[in-house]
Amino acid sequence: VALKAAILIVSTTAAQDPATDSADVTLRQVFDEQQAQWEVHESKIVPDDVVQIQKQIIHWTNQATAANGDNNTNTINLIVTTGGTGFAVSDQTPEAVSALLHKNAPGLVHGMLAASLQVTPFAMMSRPVAGVRNGTVIITLPGSPKGAKENLQAVIKMLPHACMQAAGANSRALHKGG
Amino acid sequence: VALKAAILIVSTTAAQDPATDSADVTLRQVFDEQQAQWEVHESKIVPDDVVQIQKQIIHWTNQATAANGDNNTNTINLIVTTGGTGFAVSDQTPEAVSALLHKNAPGLVHGMLAASLQVTPFAMMSRPVAGVRNGTVIITLPGSPKGAKENLQAVIKMLPHACMQAAGANSRALHKGG
Amino acid sequence: VALKAAILIVSTTAAQDPATDSADVTLRQVFDEQQAQWEVHESKIVPDDVVQIQKQIIHWTNQATAANGDNNTNTINLIVTTGGTGFAVSDQTPEAVSALLHKNAPGLVHGMLAASLQVTPFAMMSRPVAGVRNGTVIITLPGSPKGAKENLQAVIKMLPHACMQAAGANSRALHKGG
Ligand code: NA
Repeated sequence: VALKAAILIVSTTAAQDPATDSADVTLRQVFDEQQAQWEVHESKIVPDDVVQIQKQIIHWTNQATAANGDNNTNTINLIVTTGGTGFAVSDQTPEAVSALLHKNAPGLVHGMLAASLQVTPFAMMSRPVAGVRNGTVIITLPGSPKGAKENLQAVIKMLPHACMQAAGANSRALHKGG
Repeated sequence: VALKAAILIVSTTAAQDPATDSADVTLRQVFDEQQAQWEVHESKIVPDDVVQIQKQIIHWTNQATAANGDNNTNTINLIVTTGGTGFAVSDQTPEAVSALLHKNAPGLVHGMLAASLQVTPFAMMSRPVAGVRNGTVIITLPGSPKGAKENLQAVIKMLPHACMQAAGANSRALHKGG
Repeated sequence: VALKAAILIVSTTAAQDPATDSADVTLRQVFDEQQAQWEVHESKIVPDDVVQIQKQIIHWTNQATAANGDNNTNTINLIVTTGGTGFAVSDQTPEAVSALLHKNAPGLVHGMLAASLQVTPFAMMSRPVAGVRNGTVIITLPGSPKGAKENLQAVIKMLPHACMQAAGANSRALHKGG
């Protein structure tokens, strides 16, 4: 059983014209390179709007809770967002996500920032958050496909462990097929 | 048009005798070395007091809001504080500033800490915060002129981009003269 | 006068059978290697339970406050916790500690994460917090003796300075024997 990832593209432009987005394809490639460990369950596009970001994340992470009782076939193990992590008024993804986290994961944030800073000092311009809501790990990636890819690659080897721990009693089942 | 910086010296000693402060001169030099990109609009000294720190920051950042309507000639683009980031009871600058931020900027914090740690392990003793309030970027620097200078130098190349994004619709105008 | 450290082992397993814990011995060795700078005043084991973690930390840090009036012979200068920093539902030490901190210390967090990441990418899986409550510095270490040791070693040289600052007016007395 592969781990289930969901991709949330936060972009008012892409919400109006999905063809303008290229982060989705880029991030799916990163997951696909991990030897069948990940299945990208779903991608969604929302505008730069706190309520719409939070609604989608709550929807995905409440599935996780409901599933914890019997099995976790519907659990989303990982949500990655892309976009809305800059300094503009419209950049509100970290605030939207932060408010929903039950646990913060500063080690994942550190890992993303340290890796990105080795590529470019512009990494300082990102405002990532990472953590857990119910049984789901959530990380925020920058909006540029290049930055998003580099940040995800910086942590992807560790994410199965984090996700299996977060998924709780079901980690054994997940591991079997991992 | 240069970007406008303001310097807030947080020091009960300097508030009583401004001659004891040397961080102001040191930080002005760092801004001046950036090829006319920055104008130091104002420096203020306040004692180690949460209310006085917050009053000054609110004053500077509310100018930014008011200005966003028509033009931003009065906008303070950047506030740097120096002092009050240690572990003593009187060190309350990070707490005072944190409570006022609308956005956190962990990338800038990471950039300052990583750069400082390459100079001295005492960098671990700093407790920096960074973020945005209204249209203004705010970062807290240590109280020692040497530490303050090193921390500001670690991020100053990125600050124009952060400040222009934070200033919003007016970023085009700011960029023209940048 | 040596600085006083307390060790809080957070582990439901060790709370049932103390013989299963080896972090205590390992951490005591790290303190003992610091040339009599530290006295490990007390170790306690609590299960992975927010209320029990917080009760013990409040007990230790309220001693510090009470002592600040006259002398600080009863002050606990440093609390290190070990365990409960992972991604599982039962891992709640960072949340329990965070809620009690009067000051955050991102420099110590950065120092621990940067040092650990040089040893293993699994360091990203830790979720450390560090800060001050009353006159006491608190840091959370991972549950594995190896990880706990490496994290403590990464910051231990700086901790006397942080603890003496946090202990306030009494830092002079502490320094005498340090
Ligand atoms: Na950090």
